[in-house]
Amino acid sequence: MAKALIQMALDSLDFDQTLALAEQVAPYVDILEVGTPCIKYNGLEIVTALKTKFPNNLILVDLKTMDAGEYESTPFYEAGADICTVLGVSDKATMGGVIKAANANNAEAQIDLISVKDKKAVATEAAKNGAQIIGVHTGLDAQAAGQTPFADLQAIASLNLGVRISVAGGLNKDTIQKTIQAGATIVVVGAAIYGAPSPAESAKELRALVDAA
Amino acid sequence: MAKALIQMALDSLDFDQTLALAEQVAPYVDILEVGTPCIKYNGLEIVTALKTKFPNNLILVDLKTMDAGEYESTPFYEAGADICTVLGVSDKATMGGVIKAANANNAEAQIDLISVKDKKAVATEAAKNGAQIIGVHTGLDAQAAGQTPFADLQAIASLNLGVRISVAGGLNKDTIQKTIQAGATIVVVGAAIYGAPSPAESAKELRALVDAA
Repeated sequence: MAKALIQMALDSLDFDQTLALAEQVAPYVDILEVGTPCIKYNGLEIVTALKTKFPNNLILVDLKTMDAGEYESTPFYEAGADICTVLGVSDKATMGGVIKAANANNAEAQIDLISVKDKKAVATEAAKNGAQIIGVHTGLDAQAAGQTPFADLQAIASLNLGVRISVAGGLNKDTIQKTIQAGATIVVVGAAIYGAPSPAESAKELRALVDAA
Repeated sequence: MAKALIQMALDSLDFDQTLALAEQVAPYVDILEVGTPCIKYNGLEIVTALKTKFPNNLILVDLKTMDAGEYESTPFYEAGADICTVLGVSDKATMGGVIKAANANNAEAQIDLISVKDKKAVATEAAKNGAQIIGVHTGLDAQAAGQTPFADLQAIASLNLGVRISVAGGLNKDTIQKTIQAGATIVVVGAAIYGAPSPAESAKELRALVDAA
């Protein structure tokens, strides 16, 4: 089995701080994620900057697209995004538009299951329609209310859809290995790294845990 | 009854084209809307530019926020947004966060009902929680499949929630008056203006229709 990938969520709004944090963690993570607030605040330019500065990392743009899928995502794929996200609560045509744009740019589309009621149904349909990644995602506001992504991960993993499963929602060094053992092939970390005294040390430690999982 | 407001959706990605279109229509519309693809492409800077250049128009930023409501919307309100949107399919805490940020900045929050299943329930709860505007919204991808916002507008208007109702979804000179008569207090136009030979002339014509409705 291929080793799981680590995705680092860049959740700051500040352009320079985002690049500085990426610099610290890039050697230890696979995917650099431009968080949704960060992309809305900074625009396409931050994707171009990250792509140029970190050619050895994959770049994910967390667009959380809700409408106009192909139109909205195309410029980000053209700017070098390897993965863009689209909301699983959106219209099927919207998800289809992002998948189309991904394929046109030799890149990938991730369906974000945040707030989706029937997660199994949406994941199954999305995989059938060509989405490469299913995102099991407990949002920041839901985390603050005590929710975690683990039950949802089990439900999606049990479907054996043949797509990668990304898990986000407050993962840290105590939960990252069991998340991979439960079927995640991409694990998203944010606060566990950027909230640590040394983000680089924390990223290095998580890398070792993931590689040993 | 107060006259209905016209909202112009600025859907281009190009920074200068967006400002140029705004310049043409600003005298005839009340609200300049930074479309979702436009904000993700250009970032906060385009809000600042529009606010500076068009002090007599309200500025709506179509963030379509899905998570981290207060964190994501606050900088846009601080930059001068009069209205930001948050998705009705998001977590209640997310909507609450945007409403909180709006109130902290003497501005307004709009709940976008796009893809919401039980629109009446979400609209009722949002109004109770302090949202100032309910957005009845047939997205571009759904419009392409032939859908319109009119049945949803009737359902929401019948609730008499005491909030403003914004309607978006392919409105044009043939439908704008009946939309207002059915209860819309904000009518959103996009392609009907930017797709016209003269956007200014089209905006002027729609202004007259709205004021006579």
